[in-house]
Amino acid sequence: MFAPLTPIRFLHRAAELFASKVGVVSGARRFTYGEFGERCARLAGALLRLGLQPGDRVAYLSFNNHQLLEGYYGVVMAHGVVMPLNVRLSAPELTAILQHAEAKILFYEADFAPLVQALQPAVPSLQHGLCLDGDYETLLTDAFVYWPSVSSIDDSSTAELFYTSGSTGTPKGVMLSHRTLYLHALSVATLYENIETMTDLHTIPLFHANGWGRPQASVMLGVRQVMVRRFDPSAVLQLIEQERATDMCLVPTMANALINAPDLGKYDVSSMRNIMIGGAASSPELIARMEKVFPPPCRTFAGYGLTETAPVLTSARPKGTFQPASEEERLRRLAMAGWPVPNVELRVVSDDMKSVPRDMQTIGEVVVQGNHLMSGYFKDPEATAAAFKDGWFLTGDMAVWDEEGYIHIVDRKKEIIISGGENISSIEIEKAIFAHPEVLECAVVAAPDDKWGEVPVAIVVRKPGSSLSADALLDFIGRRLARFKLPRLIEFRDEPLPKTGTGKIRKLELRERFWEGRERRVH
Amino acid sequence: MFAPLTPIRFLHRAAELFASKVGVVSGARRFTYGEFGERCARLAGALLRLGLQPGDRVAYLSFNNHQLLEGYYGVVMAHGVVMPLNVRLSAPELTAILQHAEAKILFYEADFAPLVQALQPAVPSLQHGLCLDGDYETLLTDAFVYWPSVSSIDDSSTAELFYTSGSTGTPKGVMLSHRTLYLHALSVATLYENIETMTDLHTIPLFHANGWGRPQASVMLGVRQVMVRRFDPSAVLQLIEQERATDMCLVPTMANALINAPDLGKYDVSSMRNIMIGGAASSPELIARMEKVFPPPCRTFAGYGLTETAPVLTSARPKGTFQPASEEERLRRLAMAGWPVPNVELRVVSDDMKSVPRDMQTIGEVVVQGNHLMSGYFKDPEATAAAFKDGWFLTGDMAVWDEEGYIHIVDRKKEIIISGGENISSIEIEKAIFAHPEVLECAVVAAPDDKWGEVPVAIVVRKPGSSLSADALLDFIGRRLARFKLPRLIEFRDEPLPKTGTGKIRKLELRERFWEGRERRVH
Repeated sequence: MFAPLTPIRFLHRAAELFASKVGVVSGARRFTYGEFGERCARLAGALLRLGLQPGDRVAYLSFNNHQLLEGYYGVVMAHGVVMPLNVRLSAPELTAILQHAEAKILFYEADFAPLVQALQPAVPSLQHGLCLDGDYETLLTDAFVYWPSVSSIDDSSTAELFYTSGSTGTPKGVMLSHRTLYLHALSVATLYENIETMTDLHTIPLFHANGWGRPQASVMLGVRQVMVRRFDPSAVLQLIEQERATDMCLVPTMANALINAPDLGKYDVSSMRNIMIGGAASSPELIARMEKVFPPPCRTFAGYGLTETAPVLTSARPKGTFQPASEEERLRRLAMAGWPVPNVELRVVSDDMKSVPRDMQTIGEVVVQGNHLMSGYFKDPEATAAAFKDGWFLTGDMAVWDEEGYIHIVDRKKEIIISGGENISSIEIEKAIFAHPEVLECAVVAAPDDKWGEVPVAIVVRKPGSSLSADALLDFIGRRLARFKLPRLIEFRDEPLPKTGTGKIRKLELRERFWEGRERRVH
Repeated sequence: MFAPLTPIRFLHRAAELFASKVGVVSGARRFTYGEFGERCARLAGALLRLGLQPGDRVAYLSFNNHQLLEGYYGVVMAHGVVMPLNVRLSAPELTAILQHAEAKILFYEADFAPLVQALQPAVPSLQHGLCLDGDYETLLTDAFVYWPSVSSIDDSSTAELFYTSGSTGTPKGVMLSHRTLYLHALSVATLYENIETMTDLHTIPLFHANGWGRPQASVMLGVRQVMVRRFDPSAVLQLIEQERATDMCLVPTMANALINAPDLGKYDVSSMRNIMIGGAASSPELIARMEKVFPPPCRTFAGYGLTETAPVLTSARPKGTFQPASEEERLRRLAMAGWPVPNVELRVVSDDMKSVPRDMQTIGEVVVQGNHLMSGYFKDPEATAAAFKDGWFLTGDMAVWDEEGYIHIVDRKKEIIISGGENISSIEIEKAIFAHPEVLECAVVAAPDDKWGEVPVAIVVRKPGSSLSADALLDFIGRRLARFKLPRLIEFRDEPLPKTGTGKIRKLELRERFWEGRERRVH
């Protein structure tokens, strides 16, 4: 017997089995899963009344709150596609996305009202702009309750649309189907422990990469979810104490901010049990510092994934198959991308799609098969076709791996430096530079070289008051890196480096200058 | 992107990620998941060399051992259908099943060689009878390693075929597809905790109901599996100590045997963490006694399912949504069938398919939708059609339920007694009779009655030496049951009650005698 794989079933389950349990905490508001389910069903009813047609896109411009979480279900239940926007993007970027997506409805927090007013005329598809703070409650109160028939859902249809910031080019709309979201939630669930006493803190913006799958996995298992509107270290620490939170996800900059929070000692964070760090490369030092703040039985480990993979592909949660040879090795393992979750098949391959040796030395591209890959890029069959090769999804991430199935990401494919036939990780050099106490920001990119093809060059911003010289810095990193990896040029800048909407340095933009007038390398 | 949902991927995953971890312990033999994976792939190769065609049935007549577990994967990887037989069935029953299934290959343990010799002539489809103790190792050694291409698998095709004993009628072959087994494993995985240090004891015969999904869930997560060849209380206790087992499943009779084992105190069972009791109704008393032997942090709770549902539908694992009002209530909850696992939608309904009130009083039939239902009964479209109604699978189990989503099974539909419009659970009366210390066996069935339609009658076997009278017994149970539930007749027997191959009392056979010459009630 066939039952469609749709996250709507998770909400059904939560509303039925956890009806009287507080499921969603958002600021001063608390909703049981019974109430939350009804609110989502009312949102679905309201959207239908507004004329939403199957497949119509409903965008959100909102920090984390219960309304956005309601959109994860209500929009999908109304047969629409939910499309949370990155609130950090510029007005032109948001306009381009809304135009490309032909969004019909835009929900927004009051803070963004001026922005929406500016956007709206440039997006003719937009029929309704609805404020989540004002009209929203009336909208729900007035709406009928609509639960779609699950058996009528085509689970290969798109439920969520996430525009990736990308470090280059125009943003692309990642289509995630009902089935993808459903199976991804089951993957994420295998990382959950002691479900019945779990409280999950939504520290990661829900507009990123399907909220890392937590809105689905936590609803499925009736886990209590606490919204963090905007990441603020003190507020998060306070919420942990107040709500006795057990689980959260962090990007490394958040983790750093937490452990450096001046009022860290003021709060009781002993309830924490699992912290996953992802979104960017972690480090053994960061894990070690996190373990000091959140000591065992709390576990901190890295994870890895992409918007296109719904997102979680791997986690560095201990496997139990080996004892790390040393404390250093243990921390090093916890900071890696880690090993694949169920529903995912993953390899590290050379350009001809052959697995590279599992020696933690040979660099290859991470490629993926499995059940939580995107259906493709919205209205972009060319980009979709380019993202797959021989039935494998190309992540564009370069990694090394080993016999234990651990992968360690060394660079983005577009940012790796190929010098005299050697793959050099720009990130590895950046880490060596960052280790210098006077460095504030840095980026390492490939510059052309007649003899070696490419050579690394570094662009560095010093901390205020520093007079660090290029020679001194070269000398410093020369003690940490092999000779062929040393930058041929260190360029100091006074202004901050250019960044994307998600805070990633625009390395390809920095790289451009060195390549002007040259033929482009394609890889 | 679509990837077939097949358990073969679980074996791939285990062989890749847990290659050097001991995955299967069977008697004196220990196999890493790397070795186990290769053995399964060699079995697949051997079966292809023997001429196995896609969809051919490969039967097993074996207690629990690594060879049978290898069959769970190797047969399926050779595109065959694995068909573990209940070794407790009689020769005519086994013959009928093998004939119906048209099995092509039969693997058997040496113990069953005489039985196989007797069977073989009556099953013309059988091309090979292969002894698991003798030829088997040579078969594997000589075979090539065959891993099928996962993308070529049609995940709706049948992977396993289990003949249900049924308490009536001819056995029926339950077809479980790749997809069903895959999604069932993900459901079971949500019941697992602390996977990396888990050791699962295969106490339940693997020939029952897909081994309760453990062969799939445990392989998927790289959990160490320890085979219990035949259930023997002392041997199980010894294995728990020796292998530091953490998890096991038991039927109530096994649980009883364990806690009554004379050498119970001799073994260290403190490693145990999760015990699921299923296969038949549990009781608060049993849970309480189990908790004495396996104290917290070990948890004992009931579960419920059918071969047709792959099997797990519910578990009584604590939900964390309420505090039981008393110790009695806590134990009562743990002994219920419990609440649904993910991937399962479940209702308790009246004959017109309307949900009965959630009052733990009103009896209805348990009906199921979801992702781990059988594809149907093999070569029996009529029985398949009769098993579904309005898109719901009819379990034939009668239950009560409540607002928390807990269900409590009160009887088989065919065995419930409808007296003056009241549903009376035959099991409830049997429990009251069993509570008398002089009762060895009993069965309560419906007898015809002109005034009430049906009335309960009891057939009782007393313990040796007992002279318990019908009046004394009636007086005893009269203190526990409402008057309308009291049997109108108590009949004592000296010989054991007739039983099925799985040890269930043939109640419908006992019932027949009372209904001779009457028109049958159909329900």
